[in-house]
Amino acid sequence: MRDTEITAEDLQPVAGNGLLHRRLFLAQGAGLLGAGLMTASVASAVSSADFPDSMRLPGPGASPYGERSRFESGVVRLARPDTGAVPASTGAQSPLDRLEGTITPNSLHFERHHTGVPDIDPGQHRLLIHGLVRRPLEFSLDALARYPLVSRVHFVECSGNSGSLNGPKPLQATAGQLHGLLSCSEWTGVRLSTLLDEAGVDPRAKWIYAEGADSSGMSRSIPLAKAMDDALICLYQNGEKIRPENGYPLRLLAPGWSGNLNVKWLRRIKLVEGPVMTRDETSKYTILLPTGKAWQFVFPLEVKSIITRPSPGLNMKGPGFYEISGMAWSGNGKIAKVEISADGGKSWAPAALQEPVLSKAITRFRAPWNWDGGPAVLQSRATDDTGMVQPTRAALIAERGARGQYHVNCIQSWAINDKGEAANVFA
Amino acid sequence: MRDTEITAEDLQPVAGNGLLHRRLFLAQGAGLLGAGLMTASVASAVSSADFPDSMRLPGPGASPYGERSRFESGVVRLARPDTGAVPASTGAQSPLDRLEGTITPNSLHFERHHTGVPDIDPGQHRLLIHGLVRRPLEFSLDALARYPLVSRVHFVECSGNSGSLNGPKPLQATAGQLHGLLSCSEWTGVRLSTLLDEAGVDPRAKWIYAEGADSSGMSRSIPLAKAMDDALICLYQNGEKIRPENGYPLRLLAPGWSGNLNVKWLRRIKLVEGPVMTRDETSKYTILLPTGKAWQFVFPLEVKSIITRPSPGLNMKGPGFYEISGMAWSGNGKIAKVEISADGGKSWAPAALQEPVLSKAITRFRAPWNWDGGPAVLQSRATDDTGMVQPTRAALIAERGARGQYHVNCIQSWAINDKGEAANVFA
Repeated sequence: MRDTEITAEDLQPVAGNGLLHRRLFLAQGAGLLGAGLMTASVASAVSSADFPDSMRLPGPGASPYGERSRFESGVVRLARPDTGAVPASTGAQSPLDRLEGTITPNSLHFERHHTGVPDIDPGQHRLLIHGLVRRPLEFSLDALARYPLVSRVHFVECSGNSGSLNGPKPLQATAGQLHGLLSCSEWTGVRLSTLLDEAGVDPRAKWIYAEGADSSGMSRSIPLAKAMDDALICLYQNGEKIRPENGYPLRLLAPGWSGNLNVKWLRRIKLVEGPVMTRDETSKYTILLPTGKAWQFVFPLEVKSIITRPSPGLNMKGPGFYEISGMAWSGNGKIAKVEISADGGKSWAPAALQEPVLSKAITRFRAPWNWDGGPAVLQSRATDDTGMVQPTRAALIAERGARGQYHVNCIQSWAINDKGEAANVFA
Repeated sequence: MRDTEITAEDLQPVAGNGLLHRRLFLAQGAGLLGAGLMTASVASAVSSADFPDSMRLPGPGASPYGERSRFESGVVRLARPDTGAVPASTGAQSPLDRLEGTITPNSLHFERHHTGVPDIDPGQHRLLIHGLVRRPLEFSLDALARYPLVSRVHFVECSGNSGSLNGPKPLQATAGQLHGLLSCSEWTGVRLSTLLDEAGVDPRAKWIYAEGADSSGMSRSIPLAKAMDDALICLYQNGEKIRPENGYPLRLLAPGWSGNLNVKWLRRIKLVEGPVMTRDETSKYTILLPTGKAWQFVFPLEVKSIITRPSPGLNMKGPGFYEISGMAWSGNGKIAKVEISADGGKSWAPAALQEPVLSKAITRFRAPWNWDGGPAVLQSRATDDTGMVQPTRAALIAERGARGQYHVNCIQSWAINDKGEAANVFA
């Protein structure tokens, strides 16, 4: 049965420059059998029965909290240079080009903080809900842990992620360095609506003000409707307690919305009539338009995708079959479609989407490609279930100008040369 | 609208001893407002505007590979005692009672190995596919990385997990110590069927023999049908490369089947006509029946669930509202239903299942409980989408006797005393 699912037709290109039908990946058998596409990378020799060293002596026993193989120590977060303007205003990107699947391991989740990572004793930490409420409430971690929890997979993306694509020329860097202020985790926490219901929201309240317990006092105003919809007070990240750089012992999660709205080290939520106009939503995190005016309070992160393999630093080794793999996400809902081009946007082939496709979460896409060894320009274009389509760089700049560096969601182009190397280009 | 979703009726018990309707958790607002169920755990004082220490000075900057908060260092894998019979035949359980959600962080994935954890250089490692094939193939890691990948969330469970429930008396230990040879990850790898198709399976081949590169040469025979169905050659675990104790640089994943079939440090797969009768499927990993005969080759792990909160060591603090939280899974498919009893199985209430419910993956369940402060016996009972129902301990022993310690999937009972402490009981 599997054999009949793939036909010779599936091995014909469906778009320019060697893109094959995604059915090759959707069928149970990958259908490459007999097509000879894969043999270039496989040695045909039969191994001898020689035992490797690992079989000669026992290894060490179990450990309380495991570590990576020493051979993987080069896969690290990519530090953003400290500008020196503010102590410890640093960050580090996830090495997206070295990861697979959709979950980011906690040790490689991107970080961005304005004055470093606070060291908070959970026994001392409190969350205060006050302002326009019937009764102000203060929660210890023990009290919060008694509330009903929900678990959801969501991405978090810094508003400034991919900002260099609006620069004057393409930066030569890895996919992680260019786009790695993005990660995805299974978050577990208490619905903010549960806590607000208990405090009793005054009808005059239309916004919340959320403040972190770091020394920058990072704080944002958020419409009450979002707080009551899907916002969480998160305690866990991928099963274990949230990591310090991600807000330990608790953070706000505003799924799909600009990264810094997901206030880390959250210490208080004040219900207010209108936005508070904090430093982090006036002098920063606004989108400067060509007119000199700026958009403020642009909340959902627009539909976006990037190809992580191949990408700069991950070179292809000779013509033949390759899997194109990447990540797509939207702050407005689920990914509906990802298309791949190998000819700089002239023709497009649909990619296979890895199930389950979840709302406001990273979706892994994959597309089969038979590279002929010549130059190619690879692009991915995502569409979400609200119908929004990822724009080209030219279209985004036509709309917003090239001065704003927030919410840059345009198509990334990788130029492949005849050595199989990928470079960042503006195509 | 949210307010109308919850009615006073939902706050009436739906089963004995205070179990409430799961609708309390399924509605968008948790519906506890006004019911006064939660206030016992909340301080009503308004905090002063005093800044915590964390706001007075900047913290340290970004790090290449993150670590946990120092306040979480007590959450560790629980070492299984080394029996001394074989060097480094050890293991360690995931601390399930300290985790939430469905994903196990890589550092806390359970481990079980017969002669310790080998240290394997991926540049030297090879996977050989040979035996009844048209052409034997040998794959380097580089070659494997070129194949199409798939990502899937699956649990892995040791066949011996929960074995103490078949013992003569209930062991007083945590949920993690009793049931933590169980973890769940997003695995990414190459479909084994793709590689077997390329090697060309001889029609005489009906089984595969899979062998690890550890010094115990852990090896199992597996029906070819499973290998061609959903088995993977895994390279990644929760986004990053597989951890050493989980098979670095690659492992076999036989989703839903007994843990040791998921051969770690996989070095070869030989296609054979029948099972090879290895040490690990004859002298061990068989199910001893009362008759003295044993079941051999019992592959799928049967439907199962445990309550992780409350559980031994996680004591409740006074009467009132609590969330009962736990994990359910089945090696045969998806979880269809989890029921909770607070009266030792006399009456049952359905739990809310956390979406997405995935096949052969851990499903988190939650149920609202208004504890009256008196004694209670908590149980969870899972049903999978094949209709299999988790048996009571008595039913399992009636079928299999109390000598076998593999594939023990019976209902776990926690007795709650009037201090809110949980104990393991045979109920």
